[in-house]
Amino acid sequence: MASRNDSRWLAAAACLAERARPLSRPNPAVGAIILQNDVVVGRGWTQASGRPHAEAMALEQAGTAARGGTLYVTLEPCAHQSQRGPACADLVARAGLSRVVAGVQDPDPRTAGDGIARLRQAGIAAECVDDDACRASLAGYLMRQARGRPHVTLKLAMSLDGCIALATGESQWITGDVARAHVHRERARADAILVGGATLRADRPRLDVRLPGLEDRSPQRFVLTGQEAPEGWIRISSPGEIKAIEGAQYLFIEGGAGAAAAFLREDLVDRLLLYRAPILIGGGLPALGDIGLGSLADAHGRWRQHGSHRLGSDLLEVYQRT
Amino acid sequence: MASRNDSRWLAAAACLAERARPLSRPNPAVGAIILQNDVVVGRGWTQASGRPHAEAMALEQAGTAARGGTLYVTLEPCAHQSQRGPACADLVARAGLSRVVAGVQDPDPRTAGDGIARLRQAGIAAECVDDDACRASLAGYLMRQARGRPHVTLKLAMSLDGCIALATGESQWITGDVARAHVHRERARADAILVGGATLRADRPRLDVRLPGLEDRSPQRFVLTGQEAPEGWIRISSPGEIKAIEGAQYLFIEGGAGAAAAFLREDLVDRLLLYRAPILIGGGLPALGDIGLGSLADAHGRWRQHGSHRLGSDLLEVYQRT
Repeated sequence: MASRNDSRWLAAAACLAERARPLSRPNPAVGAIILQNDVVVGRGWTQASGRPHAEAMALEQAGTAARGGTLYVTLEPCAHQSQRGPACADLVARAGLSRVVAGVQDPDPRTAGDGIARLRQAGIAAECVDDDACRASLAGYLMRQARGRPHVTLKLAMSLDGCIALATGESQWITGDVARAHVHRERARADAILVGGATLRADRPRLDVRLPGLEDRSPQRFVLTGQEAPEGWIRISSPGEIKAIEGAQYLFIEGGAGAAAAFLREDLVDRLLLYRAPILIGGGLPALGDIGLGSLADAHGRWRQHGSHRLGSDLLEVYQRT
Repeated sequence: MASRNDSRWLAAAACLAERARPLSRPNPAVGAIILQNDVVVGRGWTQASGRPHAEAMALEQAGTAARGGTLYVTLEPCAHQSQRGPACADLVARAGLSRVVAGVQDPDPRTAGDGIARLRQAGIAAECVDDDACRASLAGYLMRQARGRPHVTLKLAMSLDGCIALATGESQWITGDVARAHVHRERARADAILVGGATLRADRPRLDVRLPGLEDRSPQRFVLTGQEAPEGWIRISSPGEIKAIEGAQYLFIEGGAGAAAAFLREDLVDRLLLYRAPILIGGGLPALGDIGLGSLADAHGRWRQHGSHRLGSDLLEVYQRT
């Protein structure tokens, strides 16, 4: 049983895991903390391309101080040897820890509980708790494992009345600098980014990351279109094809209204980012096309707000599927 | 100079003034508090149809305890004798108060500073401060005085993507019980309520107050239409005609998209109430028709958020014109 104290350390490990996103791909972004007498002696997160794992990094940092300590790790330590390194469960067992608390069981069939079992065999008090913060920090990996597709975020930048442009198409700018910088940060956390064909032709967006120091984090670019994709873009012709985006744990959809609606219609959106400017447009281009809603009753109960943030004079609201 | 302590008492008086709204019409809804050695000895608010005034009620309550005390009142005491009663400035002077703090100077030319002057002549330390809470609580009266029209609130009940109905017209219900009860409360605070002709014909809304105990507070009903108004409704054919709604300090616009846009186009909306349900509709009826916006730059800087409130699973956002 995870105590309240355990939950706090797992949440801290989940914060560390953020540092691994998205460079850890195709591996999950995992965070680990080693505690010795209530002092942190090791911290780790999955390194670029997936190795070393978070546990290995934290153990290396802790050295002999790990002995008798507690490891908090967001995902169950792997039980499978790989050509790229030893199984973390073995590494941890060898380090002489006395306790291991993992936030989420690894759904990978090569581990799937074997990591914890192997630690227990080594005499370590190991347990896997179902921790919300860890689950949230592994959303992309867990979605990939459960449904074979990336976790999908849909971004809408709109006026208070839900318009994403004037009727003339003018859309620069609805939101301000701070909100737009936040969008770039969100791009930098994604593996793939997608836009609809009509928007790509009309606006020629670059959809790259233009934040100082993060320029190399621009995700792979996709366009949802029946036509040919321009150079530098990969075409998908239906939302379902995102399953085939290799290794992608997080997909970020930038619009427009048609592409957004296409993904919603197939129930392929997990998270909404609504960037709302304090303006009214009136009679402009609506944020969403037809999502195939038959009645209002069907619309309710699908989304729950998950925080809101002021960004300059704009407001960001985060909604997650229930 | 109003101290921080004065501001607190003026804010309390503004809360009392709420009780007068809207029954005090055609008089402003005023609140008054009399303090004697830091103890409240009298409280008053404008009574139905405008008399007695707030000061008279507070003085009556305080009796001889008013002597030497301080009066906090949201609006400058009136200086003009009326057939319906004496000038409040005289009443206050006679009661032997030592200090009077008024929140807003009365723009009525029959007073307009004379109330304070008369108090000073009587040896009372009287001052008029420009207090935001008092100004807000008198918004309807001040608008009427300054521009000869009521203060206008536009309500929109919509989905996260800014739709007020499905494409089929289905709009019952987007928001939940709590939000809808809140709308009834807002109706009860208005003198007049308005809906567009198309919405009236399509939905046949009653627009009355159906809150227990407030059923008799239903405001006078107006319809913006080029056609004839049905029984029980008064027709106006353009937004500017609201100037002629006699004695109305607060107008509440319930939609639809056409009427809302008509008022915004003429810059006749002072306050927005956005009731937002956590649903997506997509391809539904937009909240607003064309408001005559030429470019995005013109849209910015017009609205400032003035609080948000969770109402059940919905969110109410209040915006005010800057």
